Amino acid sequence: MELPTFKDVRQADRHVQQDIHRTPILTSRLVNQRCDAHLFFKCENFQRVGAFKIRGALNAIRLLSDEEASRGVITHSSGNHAQALTLAARLKDIKATVIMPENAPPNKIEAVRNYGADLHFCAPTQQAREEKTQELIDQTGATFIPSYDHPHIIAGQGTAGYELFKEIGDIDQILVPVGGGGLLSGVALAVKHIRPEINVIGVEPALTNDAYRSFNEGKIVQPERTDTIADGLRTSLGNYTFEIIRNKVDDIVTVKEKSIVEAMRLIWERMKIIVEPSGAVPLAGILEDQIDVTDERVVLIVSGGNADLHRLPWNAD
Amino acid sequence: MELPTFKDVRQADRHVQQDIHRTPILTSRLVNQRCDAHLFFKCENFQRVGAFKIRGALNAIRLLSDEEASRGVITHSSGNHAQALTLAARLKDIKATVIMPENAPPNKIEAVRNYGADLHFCAPTQQAREEKTQELIDQTGATFIPSYDHPHIIAGQGTAGYELFKEIGDIDQILVPVGGGGLLSGVALAVKHIRPEINVIGVEPALTNDAYRSFNEGKIVQPERTDTIADGLRTSLGNYTFEIIRNKVDDIVTVKEKSIVEAMRLIWERMKIIVEPSGAVPLAGILEDQIDVTDERVVLIVSGGNADLHRLPWNAD
Repeated sequence: MELPTFKDVRQADRHVQQDIHRTPILTSRLVNQRCDAHLFFKCENFQRVGAFKIRGALNAIRLLSDEEASRGVITHSSGNHAQALTLAARLKDIKATVIMPENAPPNKIEAVRNYGADLHFCAPTQQAREEKTQELIDQTGATFIPSYDHPHIIAGQGTAGYELFKEIGDIDQILVPVGGGGLLSGVALAVKHIRPEINVIGVEPALTNDAYRSFNEGKIVQPERTDTIADGLRTSLGNYTFEIIRNKVDDIVTVKEKSIVEAMRLIWERMKIIVEPSGAVPLAGILEDQIDVTDERVVLIVSGGNADLHRLPWNAD
Repeated sequence: MELPTFKDVRQADRHVQQDIHRTPILTSRLVNQRCDAHLFFKCENFQRVGAFKIRGALNAIRLLSDEEASRGVITHSSGNHAQALTLAARLKDIKATVIMPENAPPNKIEAVRNYGADLHFCAPTQQAREEKTQELIDQTGATFIPSYDHPHIIAGQGTAGYELFKEIGDIDQILVPVGGGGLLSGVALAVKHIRPEINVIGVEPALTNDAYRSFNEGKIVQPERTDTIADGLRTSLGNYTFEIIRNKVDDIVTVKEKSIVEAMRLIWERMKIIVEPSGAVPLAGILEDQIDVTDERVVLIVSGGNADLHRLPWNAD
């Protein structure tokens, strides 16, 4: 498949609008004062399934042929993508099969089950996942929808950036968390077409800095460690997302774990909204002075809100 | 002073609008499904100082004579009112003195200090509070602004109800947490003038059911216990608030502690917003089937979001 373009994002916007929430853009006087900037938080934590992932999933489902749709979709994921794909499939009366590792958190298993997936388990290794997936594809002919490295997924995630221009005018910079790069590449496609002068910055945990290194070394590298608290950002870039990011994104910066926790806490305490660690990563970049935002109008994409309410990081010790 | 009326609420609305946030009204598909109703959450947890209290405080400050303003204001409070009065005073360049018990939570002391109050401490008894307050009034001539039982405070809190009609049309019921009754009486004044057919219901923890008993026995009674998790609702009704509530409010219902925790958790998990226990009490009334809301359009006033992020009730055991 070809790389997605702005046209694909605009088309995705038409595909997904009726089924997603137009998420609010929140501001905070206190956080603005602290950061000496005008910050706009695009709240995808309020999105259906609690994360932006529903955008890409709905677009991918919408772009199935009738024949593909009749055979259903399949994915392996222990995160938000599994819930998103299952819900998107259900909304269009399509069967969704999800493979999860046996040791996935019970609340995530329960959520996927509740959304109505045909759920299968496998040993918690990449090989077991892939074998199990292939086995089920061979049986059912289902279409595999990966969690980020797919043109329809990328175009769908880009609608989170496209939407911004319906609501706010001047923007100087847009900060996006980067893990596999689906959101960052999609947003960059939208933004750089509409307003190329806007700075699009990826923000990544320093502990899992493969996107930063890939961007700077000009080739996809794998993370050396994946134990960041930002569990949505543990994956490496894919072929599609890397290609778009290297061409469209202005910079990638990395942040410390403790800045992520500090940013998350600031958002919880001052803005009274629940963000997961991954969603707080852009603000961490500002708190660390990695990105100069003085007096600028800056959008931060709050990617999701599926935090574990039983283990809050500031209560860890 | 006379009982406040609808005119006072409308006047308060003009007084406070420029300094408060017009808080959003959020809905949740999942919570609606669960409750079989159309619920509208008026999010005063997003209000300045994290609670509706800033409304009354600003109105009270605005209604001081120049002479009173020059001598400053004073209150005793360990809760949101102290922060609200301090901020309201600061916005109008008026001095605020706050008396807090020595054992008040450090984060609340810090918040009041940060807002710029002249802070004094006393022993943690009602008598010590009152003596210390009187002593400081004698020295400074400051005007005492209580936390709820005052016509200007009540009229100010009523603006949270008045605002609803700028944003949503049909409403069948409005559910309001009740502690001292400032919010409930203010909202009732606004709502019953504009649309008398709307049911206005107070919701109170069963453990501290003094408002329920006062409403039904026709006289102010004191709570027997005040150890509800809903720490904003531990106070009893005052003379002004009782008089308005008995005349304007349709009913008061009480809810169990575990329903309050369940409602709070449902809001955190599904709506991704932070509410304090008191703010979840109206939803608890629906979860307990204390209030029939089937297919109705119901506003719940989420009074505040100043939850203790170190001690979440579902992690207690």
